[in-house]
Amino acid sequence: MKTVLLIGTLDTKGREYQYVQEKLRAEGVTPFVMDVSCKTFESEFASQVSCREVAKAAGTDFVAVSQMERVPAQKVMTEGAIRLSEKLYQEGRFQGVMALGGSNGTAIACAVMQRFPVGVPKLMVSTMASGDVRGYVGWKDIVMFHPVGDISLNRMTRQIFANAARAMAGMLKEASAEKEDKKIQIALTVFGVVQPCAERAKSLLEEKGYEVMVFHTSGTGGMALEELVKEGRIDAVLDISTTEVTDEVVGGVLTAGPTRLEAAGARGLPQVIMPGAIDLVNFKTPDTVPEKWKDRVFYRHTPHITLMRTNIEESECLGRVFAEKINRAKGPALVLIPLKGFSAYDSPTGPKAICLDGRPAPRSWFWPEADQAFYESLKNHLDLSRVGFREVPLHINDPDLAEMAVEELDRLMHEKGKLRA
Amino acid sequence: MKTVLLIGTLDTKGREYQYVQEKLRAEGVTPFVMDVSCKTFESEFASQVSCREVAKAAGTDFVAVSQMERVPAQKVMTEGAIRLSEKLYQEGRFQGVMALGGSNGTAIACAVMQRFPVGVPKLMVSTMASGDVRGYVGWKDIVMFHPVGDISLNRMTRQIFANAARAMAGMLKEASAEKEDKKIQIALTVFGVVQPCAERAKSLLEEKGYEVMVFHTSGTGGMALEELVKEGRIDAVLDISTTEVTDEVVGGVLTAGPTRLEAAGARGLPQVIMPGAIDLVNFKTPDTVPEKWKDRVFYRHTPHITLMRTNIEESECLGRVFAEKINRAKGPALVLIPLKGFSAYDSPTGPKAICLDGRPAPRSWFWPEADQAFYESLKNHLDLSRVGFREVPLHINDPDLAEMAVEELDRLMHEKGKLRA
Repeated sequence: MKTVLLIGTLDTKGREYQYVQEKLRAEGVTPFVMDVSCKTFESEFASQVSCREVAKAAGTDFVAVSQMERVPAQKVMTEGAIRLSEKLYQEGRFQGVMALGGSNGTAIACAVMQRFPVGVPKLMVSTMASGDVRGYVGWKDIVMFHPVGDISLNRMTRQIFANAARAMAGMLKEASAEKEDKKIQIALTVFGVVQPCAERAKSLLEEKGYEVMVFHTSGTGGMALEELVKEGRIDAVLDISTTEVTDEVVGGVLTAGPTRLEAAGARGLPQVIMPGAIDLVNFKTPDTVPEKWKDRVFYRHTPHITLMRTNIEESECLGRVFAEKINRAKGPALVLIPLKGFSAYDSPTGPKAICLDGRPAPRSWFWPEADQAFYESLKNHLDLSRVGFREVPLHINDPDLAEMAVEELDRLMHEKGKLRA
Repeated sequence: MKTVLLIGTLDTKGREYQYVQEKLRAEGVTPFVMDVSCKTFESEFASQVSCREVAKAAGTDFVAVSQMERVPAQKVMTEGAIRLSEKLYQEGRFQGVMALGGSNGTAIACAVMQRFPVGVPKLMVSTMASGDVRGYVGWKDIVMFHPVGDISLNRMTRQIFANAARAMAGMLKEASAEKEDKKIQIALTVFGVVQPCAERAKSLLEEKGYEVMVFHTSGTGGMALEELVKEGRIDAVLDISTTEVTDEVVGGVLTAGPTRLEAAGARGLPQVIMPGAIDLVNFKTPDTVPEKWKDRVFYRHTPHITLMRTNIEESECLGRVFAEKINRAKGPALVLIPLKGFSAYDSPTGPKAICLDGRPAPRSWFWPEADQAFYESLKNHLDLSRVGFREVPLHINDPDLAEMAVEELDRLMHEKGKLRA
C-alpha cells in the first residue's frame, strides 16, 4: 500500500484535506498529513504530524510562530516541514507528496516538494497555478493543478479535488522496469542560438546508441542538469550552451547559480565543453537592463528578450572562471573552441546591433577580439596537463563541429571505460 | 473503456507519443491521436486524425500550412484542432485530453483543452510549465506537468511521461456521485480589500446550508464565474468584488473581459451586487501604468501591485456601465451600496496615497465624492422598477453589511423559488 504525504494548513483547509483523504483512501492510498498551519486554531482535524511538531523541528515553538507576521512564519514552517519530511522520506514512510493551497500553502508545500527526486510524484492543487509558477515548480517535476475556484468545498471543486487525488493515486502505481533504461544517458545543453549544433549532436549520439537528455539553458535547465548529475542519473555531459555562466558572472537574468559547470567534473563524468552562447548576457524587456550598460551593444531577440554582447574585459574574466571550474574536474574533460563564433549571432552575418534605446550600437555584435579574449584567457588558466583544449577553425553551428564533439565525447567515454576496467 | 485525446506534433514527437500511448494502454485507456504538426514530414507514426485533416477542418490545406511561418501555422492548426475535437467530444468519442509539447505544442494543445468543461481531465506535459502559464491554463482546470528535460525519451523523461499517463488514467476513473452535490451552489467573489466581507458572507451562507464557490477577481476568476454560470453550474451570485469591471472600463490589467457581471442576469439567477473594490484600477509594477496617469492618486500594495484610485469622472462612467449591465438581468437583482467605503483602502483610515513616482499624491485615497459620483450615476441609470437598490450607511467590510447581503440573497432565492413553484 502506497502512502502520500499531504502538506496542509489545517487551520483554514481542514475540511478540504479531509475530503482529499477520503478520495485517496478510496483509491487504496494511505494519506499521511503534516499540518503547516501558521496560526493557532481549534483543531477539529487529525494530522499525523502537528503544526507544533513542525515548528519544533525548525527550532522554535508554535506559539511564537503564530505571533509572527505571515512571511517569517511561512519561512519557519517551511523549514520545519522540509526537515521532517526529508527524514520521513529517508525512512520510506511515503512515496508521493500532495497539497492544496493558496499563495501561502503553495509556497510551503512546493518548497518541500522541490526537495524530492525526480520521479517521486508531486502534485500541487493551487490557486496560483494559472500564473507565473517558476518559483513554485523550479526545475522539478511538480504537477500544478488549477482548481478554478478557491480551495473550498463545493460541487465543482469536489470534482477537481477528486481528480487530483485520483491523479496522485495513478502516479503512485508501481512502474515497470524498462529495457531501454539500461542505455547510457548523455546530458546535452541547448539554447536557441546554438540549436543547429545541439540537434546535430543529439542525432549523432542517438545513432551511437546513447540516450540524450536535453536541457534548455534558461536557468532552471542548468540547475536541473547539475542536480541530476549529482544524483547519479547522468553518465556524460556535452555542454553546448554555457550562457548561464555568462549570466552568473556578468549579471544577466538566466543564471543557474554559481556552481554551474561543476557537478560533472566533481563526479568524474566525461565531458566535452563547447562554450556556446558565451557572447550574450540575457535580460527580459529593455527596462530590466541596468542603466550603467545603456550604451553597450544589444540585440532584441524578441520584445521580451534583450541580449547584451559580452565585452573584452568580461570575456577575459569569463575565460578565467571557466578554467577554474573545469580544472577541478576529476574525470576526462575536453574544451572545444569554435574559432569562427560562439553563437548564431556571433558571426559576420549576425544581426545589426543597437544601443539599449534603439540607436545604432557603437560596434557590431560579431566581435572576434572579445571571443579571442575569452579563449586566450581560458587557455592561459587551464591546467593543460589534465584538461584537453582544442581550437577549431569552425563556427559552433557548423555540422562538422557537432560531429567532432560527439566523436571526442565517445572517445573520452571509452577511454574512461578502459581505465575503469 | 475510457479514451483520451492526445494532441501532438508527430513530426518531432512521434516516439514520445508512441511511448505515452503504450503507457495509457497498459492502464486500460484507449489513446486517440490527433496530429497537429505544422511541417510536412515522413510519417512513421499512426494517428487517428492526421495533420491534413486538421488543416482541412480549418478551411485550408496542409501544404499551405507547412509553408507558413510558425505563428500563422500554429493559428490554423489550433483552429482545426478545436473544431474537430469539439465535434468528437460531442459525439462522446473521448473523456480526457492530454498532450506533450514545447512552446508551439503547448500553445495548440492548451487552446484546445480550454474548450472543454471543468472536470474533463486535461493534462499538459510542457517545457513551459515552470514559468508564466496563465496564457495556457486560463481559468480552466488544466494540469501542467513540468518534464524537467526536453520532450525527448530518456531514462528520466520515461519516468515522468509514465507518471503523466498514469495520472491521466487515474483521473479518467469513474467518479461516484456524492450526496453533497445536491446542495445549492452560490458563487461569491472576493479580493484582498474586501476579504472580511467575503469571509463573513461565506460563513453565513454555509450556515444556511448553501455551498459557496469562491472566485478571486484577478481576471481569470471573473471569467470562470461568468462561464460557469453559463454552463448552469451556479444557482445564485453574491458579487462582492467587481474590480474587474473597473479594470475593463478604465484600463487596468485585471479585466475579465467586457461581459463581466452579465451572465447571472442573462440566466435569470438571483444576485446581490455590492460593488466592492470599484475604487481601484490594478496595475503591476509602476512602469506598467500609462504615462498619462503619472500624477494621479496611487497606492503600492506590493512591489508588483500598483493601484490607481478611480476619479470622479471614471466613477460616474462606471456607475452607468454597472446600471446598463444590471438592467438586463432577467432574474431578481439587488444592488447594495456601502456608503462608508467600497474597499479596505476606501476609508478615512486608509493608506497614504502617492503619485506614480512616490511623491505625495494630490489628495488622499479616501474620496467620498468619487464614491458618490459612482452610486448616484448607478442609481440614475438603474431601472428601479426591476432592480433593487439600497444605500446602506456602512463600510463594505462591516459584518452587518455581509449579514444583510446574505439575508437579501436568501430572500431573493426563496422568492424566486415561489415564483417557480
